[in-house]
Amino acid sequence: MSVKWKKHEKGSLSVVGLGPGGKEWMSEPAVHAVEKAHAVCGYKTYINLIQELIRPDQEIVQTGMTKEKDRCEKAIALALSGKDVALVCSGDPGIYALSGLVYELLKKQGITSKELTVKVIPGIPALSACAALLGAPLIHDFAVISLSDLLTPWHSIEKRIEAAATSDFVIVLYNPRSKKRRDHLPKAFNVIAKHRKGQTPVGIVNKAMRKGQEVHITTLDEVRESGPDTFNVGMQSLVIIGNSKSFIWDGKIITPRGYEV
Amino acid sequence: MSVKWKKHEKGSLSVVGLGPGGKEWMSEPAVHAVEKAHAVCGYKTYINLIQELIRPDQEIVQTGMTKEKDRCEKAIALALSGKDVALVCSGDPGIYALSGLVYELLKKQGITSKELTVKVIPGIPALSACAALLGAPLIHDFAVISLSDLLTPWHSIEKRIEAAATSDFVIVLYNPRSKKRRDHLPKAFNVIAKHRKGQTPVGIVNKAMRKGQEVHITTLDEVRESGPDTFNVGMQSLVIIGNSKSFIWDGKIITPRGYEV
Repeated sequence: MSVKWKKHEKGSLSVVGLGPGGKEWMSEPAVHAVEKAHAVCGYKTYINLIQELIRPDQEIVQTGMTKEKDRCEKAIALALSGKDVALVCSGDPGIYALSGLVYELLKKQGITSKELTVKVIPGIPALSACAALLGAPLIHDFAVISLSDLLTPWHSIEKRIEAAATSDFVIVLYNPRSKKRRDHLPKAFNVIAKHRKGQTPVGIVNKAMRKGQEVHITTLDEVRESGPDTFNVGMQSLVIIGNSKSFIWDGKIITPRGYEV
Repeated sequence: MSVKWKKHEKGSLSVVGLGPGGKEWMSEPAVHAVEKAHAVCGYKTYINLIQELIRPDQEIVQTGMTKEKDRCEKAIALALSGKDVALVCSGDPGIYALSGLVYELLKKQGITSKELTVKVIPGIPALSACAALLGAPLIHDFAVISLSDLLTPWHSIEKRIEAAATSDFVIVLYNPRSKKRRDHLPKAFNVIAKHRKGQTPVGIVNKAMRKGQEVHITTLDEVRESGPDTFNVGMQSLVIIGNSKSFIWDGKIITPRGYEV
């Protein structure tokens, strides 16, 4: 899509974090941004999650999953036309989400904050929601890595996994698996297993705080042997691998901070 | 403090994330957990932030800053005595916060989920709040490192900074500076500067979403030359260093995800 930008000074664009599930996980500023919006833009699944907030008089721009650029361009165009626009993202809009793309598009078009008010409203990221369900895996230093090689070459991803594994970061894997990327997660586990013991805790959460939520607690050995299918790893999953001191207790993964207990 | 655990089956313990500021940043489950609590435990500053939620009939257990273990032990003891307890943490309770210590103490005492219901309620972490204020620095892989060597030896911290810097992670530094640790942040910048150009964007946020909030956007060269004092880096600050592709535009730090814009 090619949008002709009409510059107008009265609209605004809020890039809104919905948190992990429905409306109950949103902050007040996030709810307010959606409520006051003339137009709400977002991926269908996310708009469905906050259906109770949407009013009949609001313009809804729903786009499919890989249409991120399209979605951002439409949101910017609507805001420039004078509307208050909420561009909604699951989790936090600043973690592998759309706040960056919005700013990149504004830069390309030379639209500064003088011409359009843009606000990023943070949300509870998937990593926090999944950590809470797993116990306390992120209590010490952690590295967050996306396994999607749509936008990043695999060798860079692998280099980061290796660096995180060798320096004992807890590792959070976003986008661990899609229909087209079946082998990235097993490859990532293989890299990590070179530097961490087989009993290292692994947590897998599917659809955190949503219908169909699953929480699996396993180990590096077990998940490498049985494979990601056993745990239904898919597009709405997050995988967390403990550090050398993480342990499993009473069905939870706990990473010590170092206090004398 | 040495607590004699009285085992009781009716209390509950919620470890609650307040998000970055006051009540407006809390999720509904977080607000609900505080409202239904017979007792609210937490560091004074955090309890003050949600003063409007506290009722006269609630027991308040406020402890000082380094009394984390004390705070958790009291919260557990109150819950075991039959009370519903909310142990409140700023940001997310699972990131350098108290959910881990709670589980460690429960393990030590052999108190399982059969005897006490423990729930972690995630919150918007400081890293999300600060990223939102800075623009979009965390759009690609990032590493989160605490510079506090109270509980971790400095050589481990330095190793992690080095690993994150060499493999081009965006770097988030928690606890960048205290009165006793004046030199850690300059040391960290020196390590990063070996692997990243001087024009790399650096974002410093003090007191995100709180009274006295400051947002500074600078570069690695500039912050190394002028020093952390110029930017009032302290206990309530977070520092984010961009990766090799991050840039500053219109007063924001943007890390590209890789979309063709």
